[in-house]
Amino acid sequence: MELTNVPATLGRLTTAIGLAGGEIGDMTVIAIGLATVIREVDFKARDTVHVNQIIDEIRAVEGIRIIEVVDRTFAMHRQGKIAVTSKVKVDSPDDLAMAYTPGVGRICMEIFENPALAYDLTIKQNAVAIVTDGTAVLGLGDIGPLAAMPVMEGKALLFQQFAGISAFPVCLDTKDVDKIVATVKAISPVFGGINLEDISAPRCFEIEERCQQELEIPIFHDDQHGTAVVVLAALLNALKLVNKNLRDVRIVMLGSGASATATAKLLMRAGAQNIVSCDRAGALYRGRTENMNPTKKWFSENSNPDGLRGGITDVLQGADVFIGLSGPDLVRSDDLAGMSRDSIVFAMANPVPEITPEAAAQHARVIATGRSDYPNQINNSACFPGFFKGLLAVRARQVNDEMKLAAAYALSSLVGDDELTEQYITPSMFDPRIVPTVAAAVAQSALISGVAEEPVS
Amino acid sequence: MELTNVPATLGRLTTAIGLAGGEIGDMTVIAIGLATVIREVDFKARDTVHVNQIIDEIRAVEGIRIIEVVDRTFAMHRQGKIAVTSKVKVDSPDDLAMAYTPGVGRICMEIFENPALAYDLTIKQNAVAIVTDGTAVLGLGDIGPLAAMPVMEGKALLFQQFAGISAFPVCLDTKDVDKIVATVKAISPVFGGINLEDISAPRCFEIEERCQQELEIPIFHDDQHGTAVVVLAALLNALKLVNKNLRDVRIVMLGSGASATATAKLLMRAGAQNIVSCDRAGALYRGRTENMNPTKKWFSENSNPDGLRGGITDVLQGADVFIGLSGPDLVRSDDLAGMSRDSIVFAMANPVPEITPEAAAQHARVIATGRSDYPNQINNSACFPGFFKGLLAVRARQVNDEMKLAAAYALSSLVGDDELTEQYITPSMFDPRIVPTVAAAVAQSALISGVAEEPVS
Repeated sequence: MELTNVPATLGRLTTAIGLAGGEIGDMTVIAIGLATVIREVDFKARDTVHVNQIIDEIRAVEGIRIIEVVDRTFAMHRQGKIAVTSKVKVDSPDDLAMAYTPGVGRICMEIFENPALAYDLTIKQNAVAIVTDGTAVLGLGDIGPLAAMPVMEGKALLFQQFAGISAFPVCLDTKDVDKIVATVKAISPVFGGINLEDISAPRCFEIEERCQQELEIPIFHDDQHGTAVVVLAALLNALKLVNKNLRDVRIVMLGSGASATATAKLLMRAGAQNIVSCDRAGALYRGRTENMNPTKKWFSENSNPDGLRGGITDVLQGADVFIGLSGPDLVRSDDLAGMSRDSIVFAMANPVPEITPEAAAQHARVIATGRSDYPNQINNSACFPGFFKGLLAVRARQVNDEMKLAAAYALSSLVGDDELTEQYITPSMFDPRIVPTVAAAVAQSALISGVAEEPVS
Repeated sequence: MELTNVPATLGRLTTAIGLAGGEIGDMTVIAIGLATVIREVDFKARDTVHVNQIIDEIRAVEGIRIIEVVDRTFAMHRQGKIAVTSKVKVDSPDDLAMAYTPGVGRICMEIFENPALAYDLTIKQNAVAIVTDGTAVLGLGDIGPLAAMPVMEGKALLFQQFAGISAFPVCLDTKDVDKIVATVKAISPVFGGINLEDISAPRCFEIEERCQQELEIPIFHDDQHGTAVVVLAALLNALKLVNKNLRDVRIVMLGSGASATATAKLLMRAGAQNIVSCDRAGALYRGRTENMNPTKKWFSENSNPDGLRGGITDVLQGADVFIGLSGPDLVRSDDLAGMSRDSIVFAMANPVPEITPEAAAQHARVIATGRSDYPNQINNSACFPGFFKGLLAVRARQVNDEMKLAAAYALSSLVGDDELTEQYITPSMFDPRIVPTVAAAVAQSALISGVAEEPVS
């Protein structure tokens, strides 16, 4: 924007943005004229409506002319966020004769005679398909394969950035389980692993199971197992902090979808004995009949050993841990009042948690969310890049619980006993130790559990 | 290798390699010792057996010790030739909040509400799937999807290098036409176009046709149409050079597969009236019954207007043009003796042509091959990068003959009348004008023929 070069203009501008609720970031001088200054001003707003409100407030400030409004997020996604690039230089007919015909023929025949060499002589060893049908994208629901693409590209970007893995989005124009399984099978030769993503329950379970049965490469549904790993890792540290044991605590979950089911299963594998899951109607107990589905049925039969009934407030009485994997604003501060001493609250709904950390802090000692703007961000991105790096390193043929446990223990070990506090129970996603540590744990676990052999090289 | 530092050692080495038939490239001094010199010596050989013969000869030379033998071609393919990389920087939670959750949600919803925005906000506009089942790879035949990967990666590399297009290999673990069509349909949302590659005839025709019928993005089987475009482009210039007209000449083809069929069709669309195709049994004529298949049937019914019969030698009597799209060494110099004055010979079998240029030169005036080590290399790589760039630029919905003709005319126009000689009838693949010229021709043709609209931007 162009600001009249008289005192207090900038003050009026920043005041206007601030009072309108905008969060000001960088301000950069673009050009200085005789009577005006051109500045670029970054600010954050809640949503598009809020942006327009703020811009109206700016327009009303005397001495300011808006030249251009740029949405930084849109600019970042323009024409996509990833590219397929060349690792080798092909500048001459001679290079081409090696990279392509006729030289490539020798490479092809070598693989034809020994298919395992595809891991040495193609991208397979380091390539992951990010497969979705767009039916359960973030909190947005069934928005379809085209609208899911920005998320899958974002995921591919993280695969590369954090783990140097080449991941490619496979956004499917079908919701049919048979067709999805057939497609994954058909495209599998190119890949060393398959990351299933944002596929709605219960279809995601069958797709994962059938793909894994039919293929000799690992299938990992990140929404389930990535979540389970990062939650377990953070919970292990939170329990250490409050001096409680996973075997003894009572854990209440809100949510009964794919990520909640997988998390409950992994916590149990790690020793948890008392998990109760609630949906909006209350606790899932053996024999409940109203408003059930396959995952709720699983919870009713495999958890809630004391057969608790009632709403979330009742069930939370005396509980040690709350894990929300549900939706925004479903828990009130009062609901947490009856929890036991030193209670732990993971409100993982994203972007709006089940309860804000501020509200939870009245009763809970340790609080975590999925958000980057609070302490203790629990996010799948701390798991999947390293997890796949480990799988690929040993050419694992499948994913198993041993690997998930190993990944969770490895991740939690990155917070040293002397560092552990209420504000730091899980390492930052940008901690450079995460990927090598998780990868090593997964690779070793794959070898020990017999789903991979040490590559001969 | 380590060479004793006495006179004539290097001379003995190079003599030994040369006499054994090796073609010496760069020689680099790696280290100089008191009594020895360590040198890296690049040489080319015909095949692996030949390499070993040459190495045996080198071992026999006095004063030389081989330290390491590196296969440069294998080194180039190690761990694959392409990568999926990030176009945006994600170094902080703030970046991540824009590229991934929660910021990405706004981008998704924008596409959900207006699906055409996928072209603006994802990689779709610039993404191509290279789809193969590995049934007709180069001259190697049905080697399967894994062994086909090095070729598809090579193709992806050329897409990026020549046209800046992100292409990804989709090597299918099925040969079933229905399953291939279903898979291409399922994965189509991510892509702006589909390049079918190395799929055997006649399945390739049905796959191409059905995919194109069911999808609103262009499907281009490069083995057919890429070949047709580059052959037509070169032929137009060759005919100009010898002052003959496509309408009047008699063209004899050897080969009756997918590329031969597509080439014959495009030549006819461009005006050719007299094409005769031969297989090993001789001319394909109306009524022939022995050793037929669907493409041979097409040739027998749609070409050979004079009903010629007999072997290639007979059919070549008086012919103006020979186009080989078959296999190695199928034509002898004598076969060409009866061709008309100023005859044109395109021996396109790769890597070993139907007849060597040396042998053809006894009778033909203009000679071209698919090889980079002779003049007049006719290669699909001069077509597909620019062709797809044009398709993607206007978001074309399909491929049609008008585009192929436009691409061929555009390509041939790059050889100026004053430059045209027997040794230069088609531009080098590395000519930087090719991609923009072909792309512009294809894009314009798509708009004129009504299979694309000028994008609103």
